[in-house]
Amino acid sequence: MHAIHQYQEFFISYLENQSFNREPQNLYRPIDYILGLGGKRMRPVLTLMAAEVFDTDYIKALPAAMAVEVFHNFSLVHDDIMDDAPLRRGNETVHEKWNVNTGILSGDAMLILAYQYFEQYEPEVFRDLAKLFSKTALEVCEGQQWDVDFETRKDVTIPEYLKMIEYKTAVLVAAAMKMGAIIARTSETEANLIYDFGLNLGLAFQLQDDYLDAFGDPATFGKQVGGDIIENKKTYLYLKALEFSTPEKALELEKLFTLQLDDNTEKIETAKAIFNQSGASKATQEAIEKFTFKAFETLEKLNIELSKKEMLRTFGENLMGRKV
Amino acid sequence: MHAIHQYQEFFISYLENQSFNREPQNLYRPIDYILGLGGKRMRPVLTLMAAEVFDTDYIKALPAAMAVEVFHNFSLVHDDIMDDAPLRRGNETVHEKWNVNTGILSGDAMLILAYQYFEQYEPEVFRDLAKLFSKTALEVCEGQQWDVDFETRKDVTIPEYLKMIEYKTAVLVAAAMKMGAIIARTSETEANLIYDFGLNLGLAFQLQDDYLDAFGDPATFGKQVGGDIIENKKTYLYLKALEFSTPEKALELEKLFTLQLDDNTEKIETAKAIFNQSGASKATQEAIEKFTFKAFETLEKLNIELSKKEMLRTFGENLMGRKV
Repeated sequence: MHAIHQYQEFFISYLENQSFNREPQNLYRPIDYILGLGGKRMRPVLTLMAAEVFDTDYIKALPAAMAVEVFHNFSLVHDDIMDDAPLRRGNETVHEKWNVNTGILSGDAMLILAYQYFEQYEPEVFRDLAKLFSKTALEVCEGQQWDVDFETRKDVTIPEYLKMIEYKTAVLVAAAMKMGAIIARTSETEANLIYDFGLNLGLAFQLQDDYLDAFGDPATFGKQVGGDIIENKKTYLYLKALEFSTPEKALELEKLFTLQLDDNTEKIETAKAIFNQSGASKATQEAIEKFTFKAFETLEKLNIELSKKEMLRTFGENLMGRKV
Repeated sequence: MHAIHQYQEFFISYLENQSFNREPQNLYRPIDYILGLGGKRMRPVLTLMAAEVFDTDYIKALPAAMAVEVFHNFSLVHDDIMDDAPLRRGNETVHEKWNVNTGILSGDAMLILAYQYFEQYEPEVFRDLAKLFSKTALEVCEGQQWDVDFETRKDVTIPEYLKMIEYKTAVLVAAAMKMGAIIARTSETEANLIYDFGLNLGLAFQLQDDYLDAFGDPATFGKQVGGDIIENKKTYLYLKALEFSTPEKALELEKLFTLQLDDNTEKIETAKAIFNQSGASKATQEAIEKFTFKAFETLEKLNIELSKKEMLRTFGENLMGRKV
């Protein structure tokens, strides 16, 4: 096994060798652009790591890792159109730099290109990878739709919210790891265990993202702290605060989350105070711990060397220990 | 073998049994809607016919036929957004009936659903179908991009135009037929011959669409006659007219194709007169005949019973004999 930063380097050097310098340039240049914007490359790294955890050279997993990364970026391009987002990783989004039609069409091409990376595997592995990929990709679309639906609903429950982030975020992390197992041709049991590890870690990761969005350190958190509050997003923190509050406090919070202000300083402070006083902050941290613990529990059941379990655990701890 | 209208009926009854009545409804209802709008179902019918031409029951080809139809409708949903089209088959387009975001996301889901239909086949057939499908789908995206690019270019050549309609339209007709061959597990030679038959028929079909758009019978042509002229579309007729005209006539035509008018009666008449006088109409008819002939020539080389060749020929003749 290698260190995490090494898998990152392996993947980035593979990615940089994938040329999308093809015709028609107006279709392929945006693909090159978005894939070149960086990011932690967490998902493809997990595919490479999972393959090696099951005693298969990471090199064999590179095309599948690439498929995962291309799909993830496809979903960013289309989501950014839907959210009318101007920036992605500090740079212009594709539909801002070009236009909405380019974002739609180049995104479509990326979804297809992702599938093509599986063609490098033998028929059975190809079939298993493509099946898992289709199931996952459809779930990501469903998660995105739930997210859109929730914006205009006032009765979203915690289980519904968890299902949404599971589909929108966690299943891709889980599938990225299971692909490593498929390439290593493990038993179905092992493949499903690593999937569950990824799923719970993905849930913990997304809940932590919700938490850090409000309580992260502005100096290290990648995005604007308080962004979810500004945009009136119904996160886990918000839903738990509603649940724990008196009817009056809940009404105050609901009203606060209808405001669209120029200066959000006070709104952010008020929301954070309610999150803390209601016990929502504590409940969110407990949920993060619960899912992280569930992930590590799954790890125990895996039939792999102890050193490899420790490696995966370290990855999970690093991921969850992030202050960014 | 069955009659063409019977394959249509078989396909439609299969389609009607595919329920997209799933959650989240805001994602799946638009899919049900667009798939229910009708159309000739030409592409899936060709998949069923091709399977039977190679002595395989059409029933085995139904999932692949469905994949082709779902993909075709995906491309309509996204193209309609890009073209800002209000109507499709006389009904509201998806992004009009719902909104652009719904059109994007439901379209994405359809592309994935199309791939899932191949999962019903054994690994080798699955791999061959999915590979052909990805290649074709990417070409359709490229064709769409060329079409967009051509709108703002003044130097589009005839070979470039033919490449564009090949990618945007003909490859899917060709792939629909080759899928039948893949399911029947024919030799690569036979599969490629039926692909070429479909490709040339698809090209002839699209060129005829260009021709009928200007010269079709308003009583039977499905769309508004003169629509391409109104929208200043650089079709085969237009490009050939430019090629055959004196510099003065060419300039007149180019100017005519910058106008955006309320009453297009005169513009349409002028354009049609130039198409006729320049010899562009005749050249277009000759090109249609050339590609139709090439399709029928390919048919001769197929190693199938004579009655089956005749059946395919009749299909081609009916398709090209259409006045609609």
